[in-house]
Amino acid sequence: VAKKEFDPAAVKALTFDVFGTVVDWRSSIAREAAAFGKKHGLELDWDTFADSWRALYQPAMEKVRTGERPWVPLDVLHRQNLDRVLEDSGVSGIDEAEIANLNLAWHRLDPWPEAVEGLTRLKSRYIIGTLSNGNIALMVNMAKHTGLPWDVILGSEVARAYKPQPEAYLRSAAALGLAPEQCMMVAAHNPDLLAAAECGFRTAFVLRANEYGPHQRANRTAADGVDISAVDFNDLADQLGC
Amino acid sequence: VAKKEFDPAAVKALTFDVFGTVVDWRSSIAREAAAFGKKHGLELDWDTFADSWRALYQPAMEKVRTGERPWVPLDVLHRQNLDRVLEDSGVSGIDEAEIANLNLAWHRLDPWPEAVEGLTRLKSRYIIGTLSNGNIALMVNMAKHTGLPWDVILGSEVARAYKPQPEAYLRSAAALGLAPEQCMMVAAHNPDLLAAAECGFRTAFVLRANEYGPHQRANRTAADGVDISAVDFNDLADQLGC
Repeated sequence: VAKKEFDPAAVKALTFDVFGTVVDWRSSIAREAAAFGKKHGLELDWDTFADSWRALYQPAMEKVRTGERPWVPLDVLHRQNLDRVLEDSGVSGIDEAEIANLNLAWHRLDPWPEAVEGLTRLKSRYIIGTLSNGNIALMVNMAKHTGLPWDVILGSEVARAYKPQPEAYLRSAAALGLAPEQCMMVAAHNPDLLAAAECGFRTAFVLRANEYGPHQRANRTAADGVDISAVDFNDLADQLGC
Repeated sequence: VAKKEFDPAAVKALTFDVFGTVVDWRSSIAREAAAFGKKHGLELDWDTFADSWRALYQPAMEKVRTGERPWVPLDVLHRQNLDRVLEDSGVSGIDEAEIANLNLAWHRLDPWPEAVEGLTRLKSRYIIGTLSNGNIALMVNMAKHTGLPWDVILGSEVARAYKPQPEAYLRSAAALGLAPEQCMMVAAHNPDLLAAAECGFRTAFVLRANEYGPHQRANRTAADGVDISAVDFNDLADQLGC
């Protein structure tokens, strides 16, 4: 299949996946969980703990996507998943406030090293917004924590749908008053990009080769049909003439 | 009634009315309408035109508030109101694209002189967000046009309710994961502040003495019960220790 020709000037907004694409969730969660463990005298492998918590992410959202439960903010799903991981790890008797605080570790994730610089460059030419499954409070607190210069927070809470459901993309574009082809989805994950492309979005792959640690095998190259492939946000800014 | 004591550190987010409080809608609309008129050979009083267009704003939203019609973005109401003002002014035969562009004048309103500087100071300590009846696209385009450094766009489209309905305030606070008393509504209009206060928000009045032109009589002082009264955003930043 021939690629549609790509014209950067036809794009008005860049919409970003956030977990893994903008921020390094795995290191940040493992670090906060390790601090939590140290405080409470727990000895666990905290990288594995982070992976186990994250592994419950897609199944939890799937219950919303299928209609088994109504839409709830990701903070709620993260908390239910955390309770389960703690229980599976044999952890009990921790104060509610401590667990609530650990759940908010997702609001304090650190960006990849060049993310703020790259986003600032991209913002000079485009509307830049989140199109994440994270809820508004999570995205705003993360941005304040780390200086992410978003123009707008879109995604699951505005759309009341979790990616890769088409509504998540289409309602985000509509909220900007834009046609899907005026929006470019930026993500380190090909399934997210391909779902956005199905909705008419342009797409940019950004390599985050260590998102899942040193042995990551998925998402090391852009899938066929993706418009742009970049090694980081500065490379994306270069390719988009920012 | 004794004022509740006000503690700036208990507030986490400042939520802003926008039309009149952040931007000078009247001068901007009159200027764009005059340019439109010149292009099409129309002779009207464009300050009056701006006032007539704005006069239809509250009645149009009222039909949504009462449930007479479902929620639609403000862009849609602005356009219906524009069509009516043009008809009432005896204007006809103008190209659709020209009218659509004039409707987007609301996306290009200029800020009051110190607004960007003041918001930038306030942003250093607080989450700053819109809590306007304007829709997301309108708010984002206005911010890009003029450099307003919002952390988040809230208000009518996120809440699916038009101020002063309580849902507009309460759902905006909830989207930030905050209790109403952790939010401070900032507006040049006492009715907006009093409606927010009814929902538990803290309140800051900012004087915009010429919003409605040189003869404005309303909203020249803060109503009883408002927490802070400021002459502009820099004064507000001073009072909040930013």
